[in-house]
Amino acid sequence: MAVEIVYRSSRDPEQLFMDKAEADRHDKMLELAETLGEVLQQAVPELGEKLAEEVSIYMARHRDLFAKAFKSNPDVLSSLAEDNAEA
Amino acid sequence: MAVEIVYRSSRDPEQLFMDKAEADRHDKMLELAETLGEVLQQAVPELGEKLAEEVSIYMARHRDLFAKAFKSNPDVLSSLAEDNAEA
Repeated sequence: MAVEIVYRSSRDPEQLFMDKAEADRHDKMLELAETLGEVLQQAVPELGEKLAEEVSIYMARHRDLFAKAFKSNPDVLSSLAEDNAEA
Repeated sequence: MAVEIVYRSSRDPEQLFMDKAEADRHDKMLELAETLGEVLQQAVPELGEKLAEEVSIYMARHRDLFAKAFKSNPDVLSSLAEDNAEA
């Protein structure tokens, strides 16, 4: 037995990480998802909290692809569409 | 009376533009919204077509801000949240 360091995001205290960089990534993903969720729910109130959160977490998990799609190239999202179809 | 040139996106034939660059921007916005809508609806089927489209058009209209938010800085979206609150 020994004491060990684990890391977590205060936004999601149940999820523990052995690796600080992973905890950081998780925290940043949740931060983006939170902000997205608020903006989308305000813009489209019919979404409701749950759907706004689901959509936001999905996009935040794939933020690099969405960044590219918004910046210039929507086609990069086709790789996601294929993943979804397989899932 | 005279014949004049107007421009439109084939994705939205009813909307006519006097300026080709504006028609281009509108077409690119709709292209992004269409791709986003498909991906989001696949990822979160409960969204349904109408909500997926509304969310996607909203984000596509503000694509520059969302590009920045996804790339690095979610805080840029706070200016949108304020606009929504005023609207």
